[in-house]
Formats: sequence, C-alpha cells, structure tokens
Amino acid sequence: MSDILMRRSVVLRRRPSGEPAPDDFEVIEEVVPALAAGEVLVRTIYLSIDPYMRGRLSDRKSYAAPVQIDAPMTGESIGEVVASESPAFKPGDIALGARLWQSHCVVPAAQLTPIARGAAPLSAYLGVLGMPGTTAYSGMKDIGQPKPGETVVISAASGAVGSVAGQLAKRAGARVVGVAGGPDKCLWVQEALGFDACVDHRVAHFSRALADTCPAGIDVYFENVGGAVQQAAFAQLNTFGRMVMCGMVAQYNDTELQPGPNLMSVVGKRLRIEGLIVSDKPERFAEWRALAAPWVQEGSLRWRETVIEGLESAPEALRMVLRGANFGKMVVRVGPG
Amino acid sequence: MSDILMRRSVVLRRRPSGEPAPDDFEVIEEVVPALAAGEVLVRTIYLSIDPYMRGRLSDRKSYAAPVQIDAPMTGESIGEVVASESPAFKPGDIALGARLWQSHCVVPAAQLTPIARGAAPLSAYLGVLGMPGTTAYSGMKDIGQPKPGETVVISAASGAVGSVAGQLAKRAGARVVGVAGGPDKCLWVQEALGFDACVDHRVAHFSRALADTCPAGIDVYFENVGGAVQQAAFAQLNTFGRMVMCGMVAQYNDTELQPGPNLMSVVGKRLRIEGLIVSDKPERFAEWRALAAPWVQEGSLRWRETVIEGLESAPEALRMVLRGANFGKMVVRVGPG
Repeated sequence: MSDILMRRSVVLRRRPSGEPAPDDFEVIEEVVPALAAGEVLVRTIYLSIDPYMRGRLSDRKSYAAPVQIDAPMTGESIGEVVASESPAFKPGDIALGARLWQSHCVVPAAQLTPIARGAAPLSAYLGVLGMPGTTAYSGMKDIGQPKPGETVVISAASGAVGSVAGQLAKRAGARVVGVAGGPDKCLWVQEALGFDACVDHRVAHFSRALADTCPAGIDVYFENVGGAVQQAAFAQLNTFGRMVMCGMVAQYNDTELQPGPNLMSVVGKRLRIEGLIVSDKPERFAEWRALAAPWVQEGSLRWRETVIEGLESAPEALRMVLRGANFGKMVVRVGPG
Repeated sequence: MSDILMRRSVVLRRRPSGEPAPDDFEVIEEVVPALAAGEVLVRTIYLSIDPYMRGRLSDRKSYAAPVQIDAPMTGESIGEVVASESPAFKPGDIALGARLWQSHCVVPAAQLTPIARGAAPLSAYLGVLGMPGTTAYSGMKDIGQPKPGETVVISAASGAVGSVAGQLAKRAGARVVGVAGGPDKCLWVQEALGFDACVDHRVAHFSRALADTCPAGIDVYFENVGGAVQQAAFAQLNTFGRMVMCGMVAQYNDTELQPGPNLMSVVGKRLRIEGLIVSDKPERFAEWRALAAPWVQEGSLRWRETVIEGLESAPEALRMVLRGANFGKMVVRVGPG
C-alpha cells in the first residue's frame, strides 16, 4: 500500500421524488484511504441491484436505513481482496459483503464472508445463492409453507426472488402460477423454470386471466409487486391463504400511497399476511447457500441475470429494475472476476 | 310429550340490504315436533346476540353459512332441558348449543354441552365464558401474544370480546389502550376493566388522539371494528406488530367494501395480520371455561351485559349491536333461568 490508489464511488447527490433521475447520483474519484488494523481492501467485481434499494434513497422511515446525501450508495457486492490487515483474508480471496457502490471498498474483515472460487459463477452469490435466493427460501419456509396440491402464485416470477420462490414451491409439490411482464418473461418462467403457468400482468383483464389460471383459488401468494396484481391475487385467496409480503416494486416510485384491499375477508378466510425482511433471520443465508449450491451446480435450480457493464451504470440499472426492464437478477459488472 | 306444545321462532323473511330492518324478520308460532331418538328439547333461557350474525343474513360467501329464507335465525344460546330422548340429558339440566332463535329447540344431544348450575350466571356462558370470551382468549394466545411492556390496542373495548382481550393483555403485562364509543364506555373500560387508557373513537382527531395515547407505538392491535379506527391503528403499528383480525363491525352493514390500508408497510415493519374464527380451534372453548371460571367467580375478570327481554326483541337487539348501542355483551332473555 505504498502507491496511491484511486477509486470511483457512486454517491447520492439528491433524494429522488418518484422515479430516480440520472443526476440524483454522481460518480466521484478519490484516493483510497489506508487500511487500519482489521480492515480489508476489496476490489468490486459485481454489484447487486435490487428493488428494495429505492427505500434507501428516501428519508422516510423504512427498514432500509437511508443513504446520506453525498455518501456512497450501499448494496450487496462481491469482490476480490487486494490488500488485508486481517489474518482472516489474504490477497486473491473472494469476499461477499463490502456493500458499497465503489470500485474499491475498505471494510472491516468481520463484515465479509469468504467465498470459495469455482463452485458457482461469482454473480450467483448476489442472486440465486445470495440475498434474493435466501429471501425466497425464507419466505417459503417461514411464511408461505406450500403443501402438495396447493396453488401458489408468484409475482415478478422471472425476477431474482420470484424465480427461486416458484421453484421451491414446485419442489414442495404445489401447482405454481407465475405473474410476469410480457410474453418473453412468461415463456421463460414456464419453459425454463417449469412453473405450471404464467400470466402476463399487461393483459387487458388480468384479474379474470388469473382466476381462469387458478380455478381452485390461491393458497399462497408471494408478493413482490403490489398494485393491481396484489388486488387480484388477494381477492382470490382461499380460506387459510397466506400472503408472503416480500416487496411491492410497482409502488416504490409512488409519491403517495394508493389504498389497499379491504381487510374484511382476512377474518372470514382466516388469512395470514406477513412481512419478510431476509436479514431478520441471518442464519438462513448460510443454510440456503449449503442447500442450493448443489442444485445450481447440477442445473436443477434455474436462474438468469441481466449484466450491465461499469460502476457508472449502476444508477441506470436501478432505474431499470424499478420499471421491470431487467430479465432475471440485475447485476453490474464493475471489474474482472 | 303427550301434550301439544307450541313454540315461537324468529325466522328470516328477507335478506337485508345495509342495516337489517325490523320486518326482515318475523315471529311465527308453531307446534314443537316430537323428539326422535337421541334428541333433546331445550327451553331457551338466553340468546346471544353477536356482530358476526350480520354475515348470516347475507348470501355472499362467508365463513358464517347463510340462514335460509323462512328458516329460523341461528345463534349461541343457553337453556334448560325439558324433555330428552338421550341418556346424556335429563329434564332440568342446563345445556349450551341449541343455537336457534326459538323458545324451544329440538336438537341432537351430541350438539349440546352440559353446564353445571351455580358456578356462574347462565348468561356468562354466552359472553365472558362463552364464544366471545373464547374468541378473545384464542386471539391473544394464538396470534396477538402480547409481551410485558408492549402496547396493545383493543377496539370495541367495552364489548364482549374486547373487554376480555384487554384484560388478558393486562395479565400478560402489556400496556393496554382501549377504543370505545362515548365517555360512559371509555370510563368503564378504564375504571372497571383496568385498561391503562381508553380513547373515544368519536373525538374529532381520533388518529392523533390514539397516537398521543400510544407514544411508544402499537405492538398488538386487536381488530373488532374496521373503518377509520383500523386505518389509524394500522398506521401506528410498530416493527413486528401483530393485527388480530377478529371482526369489523363498523363495516358489516356496508353495501360495498371501502378500500383498506396500503400494505407496503407490512414488508418494512414485518407486520403479521391474521384472521381468527374461534370455531377453528374448538378445544379452546373448554380450555377457556376452565381457566376463566375461577376468575369470574373471584371477580378478577370483569364483564357486563345488556339484557333485552323477549324472543321477539332479538332482531332489534342485533340492530343495536351493529350500531354499537349495547354496552358489554348483548343477550336476549327468552325465559326464566
């Protein structure tokens, strides 16, 4: 660390109102600070781009702490250790958890999880094996609990969370119906992921189309989107139906809250509507990596991703995720793997 | 049974739209049929009048099966056996479960639960020790699960369910805030039931008044009413808050469903919203009677009731319950105890 090393950071300049604008962010260049004892310098390879990040841009109260103005944006990432003042990491190691939109991050070793090279593509640790995959796993294990023969509906079915949630419900013996935007995504959800059906939420009479596709009603609705899809699925829930409340991406850019469904039927149908934040059960991350890595290696757990090149593209990648323009998990490739 | 015995029945003549009207019902007189083997003739002493009964008057899909036109209305009741073709009951026994708005009911013995005389007033088996008390018990045990120091809000706090729910939350060590209609009910909830506070839902700025009374937010909301009280309580739920969905009496007469709260915060706060029908866990009835009867006898579990005289008053009693004109448990006294 005798040379001066420069890094790029994407900082938040302004809190967006509605859809984030490109100039709400700025890329700055600065000197990488020297490592203190216990710290590690990680060169970022991939950044994860996820819908929940919209919450970090606002200062309204949310489970996701707001990013401060002029501070670098935060988010899951995977990278290579280039210098270390900790015995836990050495240069060349792969590490998850630096969590900053920076080309090079200085972080405490305790914050990082080592990842063995070669078991899976590195970007998979941000998607199918990472936070989104673990979210799907926890949502199904802890709330949805699909049973053989039940009907499970997954919104944003081609997304990083939805694609895993649906495949888990299939493994549990349920009939699985996806909801996705556009024929390409719907086709992939059925053909590649093996869902029993997939309904395009852009069709004219979505609620009727969903009802036609779920003639026995809905037992579990895994909620990633909100809005009209939520209203339709909620109305079609069966007695003892469960609603896994994972996210509502269709509403994250809204400047005021739309009304939700009348809750009278929650009593009569004994529905259970429950929110999920994956970090509440941190043990699920390692549990899921151990369970799913063999499925990824053997190809029985399917996934896909949209890769955008360059740290400076991260704000645009987030804009794309918020309008559903990605296909599968969205990652930004910041440097060579 | 050689004499001809006449009885009165309240039958449903028409499905009400909105608030039930007096002439939606009619009192008829008819001959009591002869008992078949295994049947019991029960003379009704008290009928229970409960908000959920509104659901039985509609033919829309509900957990409460609709009463057929020209059939007698159904509902919890307690009475005295006057004749029996079953070894399980003899004349003079007290029995719960005949469940018809009739002066004399012919029912299978298997449907009845024997009640010992003298342990508690007979009407208590329809209220504090009966279905409403068991509902409160199951709602708190199975869903609400209040912990010491948590803030618990109970709507319809002076009602048959709410009054028990709040006293159970006090026993669990929670801070308990009631919501009731008018100063008399609020005073009784605080002074007699021992709630820490009670907010009148008729005040001008109810949501602000509730917030002022719950400075640490709300951990458990026990929902009996719906409408504006629900909106206010939902918005004030804390992280990991629970909403026990027991009923929404303020909306039962509505001819169309009002929108509900936007569910975005269910994710961020990891809320759990769950519906409850007491009959789903039938074991809770006997459990609760055994637990609560000593509390009723020693006076540590408080309750009150509104008693209306005469079977023919049952429709008016239901109208009163639906507009909150009762105070405590509503019962109709059909005959001597």
